[in-house]
Amino acid sequence: MEPLQIFPIQGIREITEGSSIPDEILCCAPTLADGDVLVIASKIISKAEGRVYRESDLEISPFAAHLSKLTGNSPAYCELVLRESAGILRTAKGVVICKTHHGFVLANAGVDASNAGGRGNLIALPKDPDASARKIRAEIFEKTGKQLAVIISDTFGRAWRVGQTDLAIGVSGISPIQDWRGKQDADGRPLSKTCIAIADELACAADLVCGKAARVPAAIIRGAEYIPDDTGISALLMDESKNLFK
Amino acid sequence: MEPLQIFPIQGIREITEGSSIPDEILCCAPTLADGDVLVIASKIISKAEGRVYRESDLEISPFAAHLSKLTGNSPAYCELVLRESAGILRTAKGVVICKTHHGFVLANAGVDASNAGGRGNLIALPKDPDASARKIRAEIFEKTGKQLAVIISDTFGRAWRVGQTDLAIGVSGISPIQDWRGKQDADGRPLSKTCIAIADELACAADLVCGKAARVPAAIIRGAEYIPDDTGISALLMDESKNLFK
Repeated sequence: MEPLQIFPIQGIREITEGSSIPDEILCCAPTLADGDVLVIASKIISKAEGRVYRESDLEISPFAAHLSKLTGNSPAYCELVLRESAGILRTAKGVVICKTHHGFVLANAGVDASNAGGRGNLIALPKDPDASARKIRAEIFEKTGKQLAVIISDTFGRAWRVGQTDLAIGVSGISPIQDWRGKQDADGRPLSKTCIAIADELACAADLVCGKAARVPAAIIRGAEYIPDDTGISALLMDESKNLFK
Repeated sequence: MEPLQIFPIQGIREITEGSSIPDEILCCAPTLADGDVLVIASKIISKAEGRVYRESDLEISPFAAHLSKLTGNSPAYCELVLRESAGILRTAKGVVICKTHHGFVLANAGVDASNAGGRGNLIALPKDPDASARKIRAEIFEKTGKQLAVIISDTFGRAWRVGQTDLAIGVSGISPIQDWRGKQDADGRPLSKTCIAIADELACAADLVCGKAARVPAAIIRGAEYIPDDTGISALLMDESKNLFK
């Protein structure tokens, strides 16, 4: 059996507002094949979509000033975190656990000051990562004739586990869930592993070749099995009432 | 640059108590190379280590009988879940969220009735997955002269996200965390993604070739960068006081 392969896409130029992500990726990617999964770090999508803020341009609300005192993060950073958040779950030193307007629960609403293209810059998550993924997928099909799945990934902390992993924040051309519910094992018993978050597993797999040091913002995964549809990331977002791990 | 490769290990025989996991894996694996990461589903380790219970052999405690009424799971299933648990976080229909004696927080303490080698069988997690990983790693080195990393994986639900992913429950020959703390980005700012749970990302990646239907209980990952040490899985277990996502 052929191994599953993960190709780092190396040599992508610095992305700035208006850069064409499909063009920048295609010039550095291996020859694409139908069914390949393209995983892209959200940061370059944000940069291309103009989601970079200068700290000095952000007007600080009283709430952001308060949050700055609570967390030790800069007032401008807190301001952008609040603008990106639909709700706050918890604050601690250096961190606010937020629910973003998209519905993701993560530290500091995904706002990032590292690799932001200069000191004093802050990057927010893409506004609509599913839409970004759909657009990139459509453009790559137009330019190459290849049907890919596209996953936009970001880095998340977890409950109960130390350390971070990458997860999907936008998808196109792939069902983010692989649903085994109703299927049975060899003994006729229901399967326990019924609902695999395949988009998240693919994001984790891509991160293995996208180390910080290597500066690889995208990867191609070849040989993964998935269901090609366009339901979007909402299938992975849990109703708070169903969260048994909180 | 060479792609990272993930080889499913297919054709492994049915594992029973006393089976040699290294022998069963080596006869089906591709030729190994130093640095390969061997990811093994906990279930076959449990079977080899005799962690299979007959429901009819389990004496039901009053608490298990109560939990059975609360969850709808069988009294014997609840009994084994309780024996495996150091604490209970929550109960719902069909599920108890437990902290196991190892310190893992997961549904039903990882006790599983599917693919358990027959109806009426239940499988518990390995007693000491780090020790299992160390033993397998040492035996494979003895038999092949190759230095591998070994990860034992199981399936976990998550807070705030729908669906399950595989995570590491035992490791040997690999630091489960890749620590970027103190390093800086190109602009001299601290990195945001400071502490990557690489063992969990590797477990997710392996699961991409270990689908339920394919019955692949192990995989070899070739080309991953990691720190070869033997600190064990405890580095991934979070103190409850530090859990900001609960």
